[in-house]
Amino acid sequence: MSKPVVGIIMGSQSDLRIMKEAAEVLDELKVAYEVTIVSAHRTPLRMVEYATAARGRGVQVIVAGAGGAAHLPGMVASLTSLPVIGVPVKSSNSIDGWDSVLSILQMPAGVPVATVALDGARNAGILAAQILGASDAALGQRIDAFKESLKVKVESAAKDLETKGWKNVL
Amino acid sequence: MSKPVVGIIMGSQSDLRIMKEAAEVLDELKVAYEVTIVSAHRTPLRMVEYATAARGRGVQVIVAGAGGAAHLPGMVASLTSLPVIGVPVKSSNSIDGWDSVLSILQMPAGVPVATVALDGARNAGILAAQILGASDAALGQRIDAFKESLKVKVESAAKDLETKGWKNVL
Amino acid sequence: MSKPVVGIIMGSQSDLRIMKEAAEVLDELKVAYEVTIVSAHRTPLRMVEYATAARGRGVQVIVAGAGGAAHLPGMVASLTSLPVIGVPVKSSNSIDGWDSVLSILQMPAGVPVATVALDGARNAGILAAQILGASDAALGQRIDAFKESLKVKVESAAKDLETKGWKNVL
Amino acid sequence: MSKPVVGIIMGSQSDLRIMKEAAEVLDELKVAYEVTIVSAHRTPLRMVEYATAARGRGVQVIVAGAGGAAHLPGMVASLTSLPVIGVPVKSSNSIDGWDSVLSILQMPAGVPVATVALDGARNAGILAAQILGASDAALGQRIDAFKESLKVKVESAAKDLETKGWKNVL
Amino acid sequence: MSKPVVGIIMGSQSDLRIMKEAAEVLDELKVAYEVTIVSAHRTPLRMVEYATAARGRGVQVIVAGAGGAAHLPGMVASLTSLPVIGVPVKSSNSIDGWDSVLSILQMPAGVPVATVALDGARNAGILAAQILGASDAALGQRIDAFKESLKVKVESAAKDLETKGWKNVL
Amino acid sequence: MSKPVVGIIMGSQSDLRIMKEAAEVLDELKVAYEVTIVSAHRTPLRMVEYATAARGRGVQVIVAGAGGAAHLPGMVASLTSLPVIGVPVKSSNSIDGWDSVLSILQMPAGVPVATVALDGARNAGILAAQILGASDAALGQRIDAFKESLKVKVESAAKDLETKGWKNVL
Amino acid sequence: MSKPVVGIIMGSQSDLRIMKEAAEVLDELKVAYEVTIVSAHRTPLRMVEYATAARGRGVQVIVAGAGGAAHLPGMVASLTSLPVIGVPVKSSNSIDGWDSVLSILQMPAGVPVATVALDGARNAGILAAQILGASDAALGQRIDAFKESLKVKVESAAKDLETKGWKNVL
Amino acid sequence: MSKPVVGIIMGSQSDLRIMKEAAEVLDELKVAYEVTIVSAHRTPLRMVEYATAARGRGVQVIVAGAGGAAHLPGMVASLTSLPVIGVPVKSSNSIDGWDSVLSILQMPAGVPVATVALDGARNAGILAAQILGASDAALGQRIDAFKESLKVKVESAAKDLETKGWKNVL
Repeated sequence: MSKPVVGIIMGSQSDLRIMKEAAEVLDELKVAYEVTIVSAHRTPLRMVEYATAARGRGVQVIVAGAGGAAHLPGMVASLTSLPVIGVPVKSSNSIDGWDSVLSILQMPAGVPVATVALDGARNAGILAAQILGASDAALGQRIDAFKESLKVKVESAAKDLETKGWKNVL
Repeated sequence: MSKPVVGIIMGSQSDLRIMKEAAEVLDELKVAYEVTIVSAHRTPLRMVEYATAARGRGVQVIVAGAGGAAHLPGMVASLTSLPVIGVPVKSSNSIDGWDSVLSILQMPAGVPVATVALDGARNAGILAAQILGASDAALGQRIDAFKESLKVKVESAAKDLETKGWKNVL
Repeated sequence: MSKPVVGIIMGSQSDLRIMKEAAEVLDELKVAYEVTIVSAHRTPLRMVEYATAARGRGVQVIVAGAGGAAHLPGMVASLTSLPVIGVPVKSSNSIDGWDSVLSILQMPAGVPVATVALDGARNAGILAAQILGASDAALGQRIDAFKESLKVKVESAAKDLETKGWKNVL
Repeated sequence: MSKPVVGIIMGSQSDLRIMKEAAEVLDELKVAYEVTIVSAHRTPLRMVEYATAARGRGVQVIVAGAGGAAHLPGMVASLTSLPVIGVPVKSSNSIDGWDSVLSILQMPAGVPVATVALDGARNAGILAAQILGASDAALGQRIDAFKESLKVKVESAAKDLETKGWKNVL
Repeated sequence: MSKPVVGIIMGSQSDLRIMKEAAEVLDELKVAYEVTIVSAHRTPLRMVEYATAARGRGVQVIVAGAGGAAHLPGMVASLTSLPVIGVPVKSSNSIDGWDSVLSILQMPAGVPVATVALDGARNAGILAAQILGASDAALGQRIDAFKESLKVKVESAAKDLETKGWKNVL
Repeated sequence: MSKPVVGIIMGSQSDLRIMKEAAEVLDELKVAYEVTIVSAHRTPLRMVEYATAARGRGVQVIVAGAGGAAHLPGMVASLTSLPVIGVPVKSSNSIDGWDSVLSILQMPAGVPVATVALDGARNAGILAAQILGASDAALGQRIDAFKESLKVKVESAAKDLETKGWKNVL
Repeated sequence: MSKPVVGIIMGSQSDLRIMKEAAEVLDELKVAYEVTIVSAHRTPLRMVEYATAARGRGVQVIVAGAGGAAHLPGMVASLTSLPVIGVPVKSSNSIDGWDSVLSILQMPAGVPVATVALDGARNAGILAAQILGASDAALGQRIDAFKESLKVKVESAAKDLETKGWKNVL
Repeated sequence: MSKPVVGIIMGSQSDLRIMKEAAEVLDELKVAYEVTIVSAHRTPLRMVEYATAARGRGVQVIVAGAGGAAHLPGMVASLTSLPVIGVPVKSSNSIDGWDSVLSILQMPAGVPVATVALDGARNAGILAAQILGASDAALGQRIDAFKESLKVKVESAAKDLETKGWKNVL
């Protein structure tokens, strides 16, 4: 595979059940990525290292997922000038996900994190591709095709429902 | 000025008091942008037109701000494959900003919006620059310098506080 | 069946498990309806088409259900002058339903959506009937009978409880 | 003026500061209405009387506004088969408006209230007109014209902003 | 059994699974009560009748439980000068119980409801007994004994834990 | 004045601005009360003393107000078998009042607190009177008259509004 | 074992399922502790006794866990000058844990409680050790080793993931 | 002054208006401290340096305040084995303070932060003193005297209120 341009990181291996969806959609869109675990709270120096070295290694977008008091996306954003996408993960012991959403979203002026929905790793992968696709026409076309496929699925389901009647598609 | 690569749109003229901060920081970072008003609810067809034509006109990132049941960022994202940054604006009658935050953040799988903090238009501008800077080395360096300037300001304030004592800087 | 006067639409086939309750109660009240899938985010142009054509096809009320950042009801309301009833659906990944409730309820001045309770599709169907019944005496009487039947059920349960004692009806 | 077809009621005279916006927009749309005060908690029997007599007096839609533990819209809905529009009013001592929103929105199956945004009385008036307009072509056209005027205002503001530049319209 | 002095009512038979705990503790405290179903929304006139007749029939305290947009406790309080205890019930479709809590708690000045915790029917029963016990010395003593029994249970569990060690009582 | 039967206590003198409304309405209803400051956190032993001695001194109902992590009502309830009414006070630094509401409302099984609305001291006073009035016919009649006066005021405001028109009473 | 320097208390035996994690980590860190049950609401005088005697018995830090309207940590803090760590426990009937979090966190000025995350008893134990370790070099080293072990586990999981690929570690 | 044993840090100079209360109470309790600015997001490497060097310089407790997505307390806690007290600061643009509260409180297992109330810097200072006082008898006595002074103030205010009557102390 070609050199990774997206770095997918997460605070704990338990986040992989969610974060794998970013990897899956990047596979679909043929975007090269790397995946690893970087904990802001348990490996802070590893985090500093990862974030400061990423651009130099050719990474162009970082996708970071974490739960609870989720500091990984914001701290990585403070350590690099690459765009960072944050995925709030609803961990066990979370207060309904509000903690990770607010810890990632409400960054102070100067250090943005591009936040997606709770457990929205699939959208994080798509957003990473869109960011790369802003200056990559071929990728832009693959994203257009991907969006078209979403439309086709809905239209097909709609046709099915209209034809068979709602009682027969439940 | 050169051709706009960032499109800044907002649902209502009253949002300009917040959204101007995106324009200001793009000026600082020397990124060309355009600004206009597009209301998802009052001018839905204008919105369709704006969103579908943006890429063709050379826009590479869209920054969309809206308040209350804020549908503009998500609807624009549904109509383009460009990356869309959403700014939840705390409008009057808002329920403490929760309505715009959740209306923008919680997009379904397939159609991401890169959401920033409540009233976080300045960060939206920086994020737009970072997205463009992922593949533009000169801009990347301007962003690095910008981040360096943030650091210097904090260090200077810290030195001031340490030297004079906290009672003398209040 | 006669020509549909209520249009029931939903953002995804997965919403049918909730939205079918609108259809069921309209069956009970003998109001003709149509059901289909229209996704604001994956089929935005289909949505524009549906909403702008509805009145012309004889639809008098639209019932729209969606989850998460639920833009379907509000966007349809922006595209038609028919009354639109919004049903916040509690989807998976929802933040306890708050996202769909606020995305539908908090519409800006000028474009109302008649919002019902979370997962309240049955009430959406009844409300659609009441709207039609405001100018249709026969339907008004069927609604009165329907309300009477609710009363009778409660009175019967109350009598049962009082007669048998609460320990015997658990 | 012609016989009122919309009944606007509110729990307290202090709600008039919000609820007057329903009356104002109905004036704009040339829909006849009546306005009075009916408190669910301080005049419960007056409320029963008002709600049960409304249809007989020619009222076709009721708009009810209340704050705090707002029971007026739901109780009126329980006493009539007319459509009832509920306006959550943010009263003093309210917990940020959540109390009135939830007290009005979360009605049990069987008794819907068409809820609009917090302090959304203007939208309640428009919705009442849309309900009447579903079966009244002339009113439907006035609503279409009203929606058109919203669009024109946005387009005009957009043009102004684009022409003068955002720094000159603040 | 002697004449009921506490009236336990609930909006729906499904609330009995919670509300029975009020009855059980009143049995323990030897306080006579009645139990029935009164729905504010489906049997509003039955509610008016129940509430206005209660004092005359010898009832001294009313315990009312309801879920969602819970109007029963507040409406009953508006129709009687007896003290009314409200039990917010967490119904299905509830938004985590916030709807019933706020609909019962946030009553306007003039019409209090003595609100207990979410699903706190047992405490509602105890509170009803305490209200009666304020002027009934024998009942006051039974409540004192009841409170003593709570203390004894905790002390016994504590002794058990201290003696056996925490690993042996899990 | 006669011997106090209601004890009004608050955690801090700053709560008096709210809690005085309980005293005022008890004055209106001719119920004797005492007022003092008892802090759960700063004078815990004074609190134990107050709560355990209250019944012996003739107090029949305790009204306790506090803000933030409001422990006074619940702790007093744990120390007496008298009914305790809790008033959540919205103090400065409060998180919108949610802290005092939940700290008072969500008492565990066995130790109820009759909670009223945020800053609802007036209702706490009325509820105290209703509790005493459950077994005191003369007081019951004063409460009935009080409730009648609330009704008369609303009816008078309604008449005024209907006669003069809403534009003339704003 | 040596004399306990940490006192672990909880409001109910049902909290032991959470609170045992404080004991477990103190075992790992070789810090002596005691465990018992002290209910603020059902054994208030036992609580007074425990809190006032703790320092004299050699306890240096108290860890207190409770759910719902959780008064134990704050009341103990009011009765001792020892540092008190509060653990909000998510009990059944809790409103998603918000009640215990806010009841423990939002203490008034003068009486702090060191609050940890919802159900965060393990962190409470670690924090107690850190407090003791601030002046105990040997314990400080055991905590450093403990933190090192957390880091090693993450690094090992990261290496595993990088080596095997994310599809093979799910 | 003697060598600082408490390090007070904050994310921005604007936090000083809140954080100074920690310094003030440490002055009252005669505990030596240092104050400076350390921004997790704008000076991440300065933060690493501060946190890793603190213990070696003789600091025994760190008090860290920050607003919004507040990462400073948790990140410092990840970099030292000293106890860290977190102060959630309600910054402008905050969503009512929930963001800073949850970002600080909800730390994952292994890395506790002793969180105090929103804007609770005074309590953070007292807690720091209590932590030091757990092993410093003289400081313990100063804290006891401090707590006694709180009690005396309440008792004096109570006496004043009881003597003069509540109408005369407003």
